[in-house]
Amino acid sequence: MNPRQPAFHGVIPPLVTPLRPDGAVDADSLGRLVAFLLDAGVSGLFALGSSGETAYLTDTQRDQVLDTVVGAADGRVPVFSGCIEPTTNRVIERAALARKSGADAVVATAPFYTRTHLVEVERHFRAVRSAVDLPLVAYDIPVSVQVKLSEQMVLELAANGVIDGLKDSSGDDVAFRRLLLAAQTLPDFSVLTGHEVVVDAMMLAGADGAVPGLANVDPHGYVRLLDACGRGDWAAAKTEQDRLVRLFDIVRAADPATAGGSTAGLGAFKAALAARGIITGATVAPPMRSLAGDEIGAVRALLSEAGLL
Amino acid sequence: MNPRQPAFHGVIPPLVTPLRPDGAVDADSLGRLVAFLLDAGVSGLFALGSSGETAYLTDTQRDQVLDTVVGAADGRVPVFSGCIEPTTNRVIERAALARKSGADAVVATAPFYTRTHLVEVERHFRAVRSAVDLPLVAYDIPVSVQVKLSEQMVLELAANGVIDGLKDSSGDDVAFRRLLLAAQTLPDFSVLTGHEVVVDAMMLAGADGAVPGLANVDPHGYVRLLDACGRGDWAAAKTEQDRLVRLFDIVRAADPATAGGSTAGLGAFKAALAARGIITGATVAPPMRSLAGDEIGAVRALLSEAGLL
Amino acid sequence: MNPRQPAFHGVIPPLVTPLRPDGAVDADSLGRLVAFLLDAGVSGLFALGSSGETAYLTDTQRDQVLDTVVGAADGRVPVFSGCIEPTTNRVIERAALARKSGADAVVATAPFYTRTHLVEVERHFRAVRSAVDLPLVAYDIPVSVQVKLSEQMVLELAANGVIDGLKDSSGDDVAFRRLLLAAQTLPDFSVLTGHEVVVDAMMLAGADGAVPGLANVDPHGYVRLLDACGRGDWAAAKTEQDRLVRLFDIVRAADPATAGGSTAGLGAFKAALAARGIITGATVAPPMRSLAGDEIGAVRALLSEAGLL
Amino acid sequence: MNPRQPAFHGVIPPLVTPLRPDGAVDADSLGRLVAFLLDAGVSGLFALGSSGETAYLTDTQRDQVLDTVVGAADGRVPVFSGCIEPTTNRVIERAALARKSGADAVVATAPFYTRTHLVEVERHFRAVRSAVDLPLVAYDIPVSVQVKLSEQMVLELAANGVIDGLKDSSGDDVAFRRLLLAAQTLPDFSVLTGHEVVVDAMMLAGADGAVPGLANVDPHGYVRLLDACGRGDWAAAKTEQDRLVRLFDIVRAADPATAGGSTAGLGAFKAALAARGIITGATVAPPMRSLAGDEIGAVRALLSEAGLL
Repeated sequence: MNPRQPAFHGVIPPLVTPLRPDGAVDADSLGRLVAFLLDAGVSGLFALGSSGETAYLTDTQRDQVLDTVVGAADGRVPVFSGCIEPTTNRVIERAALARKSGADAVVATAPFYTRTHLVEVERHFRAVRSAVDLPLVAYDIPVSVQVKLSEQMVLELAANGVIDGLKDSSGDDVAFRRLLLAAQTLPDFSVLTGHEVVVDAMMLAGADGAVPGLANVDPHGYVRLLDACGRGDWAAAKTEQDRLVRLFDIVRAADPATAGGSTAGLGAFKAALAARGIITGATVAPPMRSLAGDEIGAVRALLSEAGLL
Repeated sequence: MNPRQPAFHGVIPPLVTPLRPDGAVDADSLGRLVAFLLDAGVSGLFALGSSGETAYLTDTQRDQVLDTVVGAADGRVPVFSGCIEPTTNRVIERAALARKSGADAVVATAPFYTRTHLVEVERHFRAVRSAVDLPLVAYDIPVSVQVKLSEQMVLELAANGVIDGLKDSSGDDVAFRRLLLAAQTLPDFSVLTGHEVVVDAMMLAGADGAVPGLANVDPHGYVRLLDACGRGDWAAAKTEQDRLVRLFDIVRAADPATAGGSTAGLGAFKAALAARGIITGATVAPPMRSLAGDEIGAVRALLSEAGLL
Repeated sequence: MNPRQPAFHGVIPPLVTPLRPDGAVDADSLGRLVAFLLDAGVSGLFALGSSGETAYLTDTQRDQVLDTVVGAADGRVPVFSGCIEPTTNRVIERAALARKSGADAVVATAPFYTRTHLVEVERHFRAVRSAVDLPLVAYDIPVSVQVKLSEQMVLELAANGVIDGLKDSSGDDVAFRRLLLAAQTLPDFSVLTGHEVVVDAMMLAGADGAVPGLANVDPHGYVRLLDACGRGDWAAAKTEQDRLVRLFDIVRAADPATAGGSTAGLGAFKAALAARGIITGATVAPPMRSLAGDEIGAVRALLSEAGLL
Repeated sequence: MNPRQPAFHGVIPPLVTPLRPDGAVDADSLGRLVAFLLDAGVSGLFALGSSGETAYLTDTQRDQVLDTVVGAADGRVPVFSGCIEPTTNRVIERAALARKSGADAVVATAPFYTRTHLVEVERHFRAVRSAVDLPLVAYDIPVSVQVKLSEQMVLELAANGVIDGLKDSSGDDVAFRRLLLAAQTLPDFSVLTGHEVVVDAMMLAGADGAVPGLANVDPHGYVRLLDACGRGDWAAAKTEQDRLVRLFDIVRAADPATAGGSTAGLGAFKAALAARGIITGATVAPPMRSLAGDEIGAVRALLSEAGLL
């Protein structure tokens, strides 16, 4: 019934980047994470996104992460590489490296740190797409880049073949709903939600898939959720989503008196994956700190309630 | 009368980075800019700051800029190198390169793109300082990094010898005033304003110097302004400042329908320097655009009114 | 199956306030609007909300509006009265007048204009509830009051019987989802969405009803939408919602070069109601302006596409 | 030397509104406050501003405050009446009452609670001025109304005789500096700063006067400060200002875990005035709370350091 045939759909987890206690990339854990996600039936792997601590990794570490993920994926699902840099030429440099590493698509945000007009943001995406021969997914994340991609710009870039998909982490579900409706005339364009807790609602509204950080921790749950959506069993979808909403409370385990949002989120994902035995340690990059003591206990309790321990 | 003896004081222009039409760094123009600024009597040179398009340059270009500035300065004034990266390890990597290139001090912001608690911001500065054996100037620029450095944190980092100065581009003159008062017990700590149009006022309030982007265009004016402040001739300082406020209207020359704030500011500085014959061309890095036609005319008219053409 | 029995549910339109060309309240038109909405099967009437231009009306006009709506409703559905004032004592004064006019419940926001801690916001709601013997609905509208009601505060106020419901116009669907889940232990507490374009999604997530401004214009559509949700026919709900999303484009008819968001929204609702023959004129209160010319043409075209002309 | 002859200049304190323990206006204390301020040599009295808790007072209380202040001032200095209401007609209603009470000028902000275009903001001021035959001062306070008055609009309204002055509480000293320069062609237009801690700097830049809340507590200090500015003794001005910056720390006495910004500021001003014996009690209106215990101790300590106890 759905005439949409977007290239990218389903559950596409934004992989965390496991680190060793000394801060080096833990390639073994990363390989196990990839295997865990593929086993759960995810449709793609997004490396070097916000959840992958890409903003915290050196260029050498980024190369290592992408090589590891591409190798472990072994062509079974597409690998997306975040190319998260402040401006055009820097993104292009990263995208060229991503292509060399074998990524299947690149993901880029609007410029950040700078003050950039929407006309310039559009030029940015066009320049990136021209410079690298890979599909391009626009990543709408105003909390990090202070710019909301306009619906009109996204639609025009999609219609012009500049971008092949959108990952929406804007939290602006009104704009997202409008975009979904307008995108009905773009059957190849992938519209993906980045929000963990409203995936059922966004799928009902017509989204093609989801890129939830929490899918690192419970990929099976998100795959079940999207399966239920796919067969129109919205009651089952809601039930699964409600379970995942409760589980998502792990991002509130960190003490807000000493942990920023990045620590709270990434620290919790890693603590949960370590507790589940998928990755070896829960180290995060500075200036973040790892979760500790009671915080880890809270994460474990929520995992247990969700049936994941 | 003033017991303060801060290491860094006076006019320290944040140098623009001249580019050739193909986007490459124009080292010749950069060398001429350094000579122009030194001839005007500036007290330091700040390379790879926001005005230097550091967020737009590749790592290779950044190295080239710093080498050029250090070489041209030839030890006559201290050279500050911006190490503007989203997180700790990336800043440290840049700082090590800055030291290798011969910079005299490094300038770093709070983390950006990420969501970072002030406790973590403090850890960030401490980690950077520990890793690199150069003086460290904290750069408070919430418009770019979405975090305002707290007065308490700045004072503590200063008292602990972690930071040697602050460049304030926060626009929060109330906080700056409070900081200046508190910093009276830290005679070696440099408090610098980054605002072009209130330098007289901030010097009256006790600042040690200024880092105004507009000083690329009219370094002689800012040197005269600070000289007047230094000898307590506030009427003369105000007159000079008023002239510079008018000149600063060049940043309003760009058409706001197609130019973001970065284009408007950096494009204008470069157009003015090209008009004055200091640099060869006014190219800016993508996705910015250069000023054109009437916009350049408006810049020239303001230069002329200011007696600079 | 749903154990929830909240007092307030279904479609509760926030009524516009028809004005005569001279700015006086058009009570005849307001009476016709009430009849139109009741005929469509709405579950309640919300007078003097943001859509009702309450912030633009004098106290005398507010009294007149409420008297008219209560009279026209004639006890068939509950009438909610907005008591939208900056601080506690002023809200209490309005709430006493609402009770005197025969309102069935009052709706209040967090304080505005002022800088108020969440602890003080909580005290505000408690003081209002203590002072007036009517059910109290908290109205979460950060775009107007700059404060987001915290989930914890809402749940505690609900559990303590201070508030009987929440109208969420925060746009924060993540927080709303979490609240819905937590509110499952509060079967009498009404959780209402104020967003026009995600009602199907929010009902799937467990909301009890909706307070969409667009329901002034197409109450039948929203009643059909909620009926579909109620019987679990999510495909039908989505189809109806998609039609309403398209209709909601009327709020984009106003020229953004000369119209603020309030003019765009309230002007469009009134232009549409006038085009549909429900109210006599589309006058809005100063400093807003009425829609004109092409703007009205755009509204009519969208009404026509939606089958409403 | 200064060709400016603005109607309003000097120190114009925004009077707090003393309240009795039961919340009623304490007219006796208010009368004593007026006498205290006049004795110190202030140039005007601003009643019913943000510092006057106008957003917290009922209309009856507002009338009482204005009558008291006008009576106590007895024509010795002009009395400004805040007419702080969300929209045009409501402001006009208050302005008519202010005129009836004998106020010499009215003070109005941009609309709030609503979403209003700058074109509409300008219409707002024009409508207010047309409706009431009193001088009008525009009050630029984005922290409360979320709109920054544009320099261009202010200058045009001033040139057209719509507004007679501006009270700037925007914190945007860059814009303020530009405005001061442009206003040199408007010798009758009063440009007043609302910031307590940069009055010396703003007077150096060319401001005509100040409306600092802290002048309730130490009017003699602010009068001395402006006298020093007037005679060009900037060193003396800075010394006085520095003392006042330290005193202004009283607004940090309140525990931020339980007090919002309004409580911290207004509570401190009242606690200080009570400690100095000018007003009887330090009650503030709900949902604020009065300062207590250690908080009052901190206020007293700062008063003592400033030589005011």
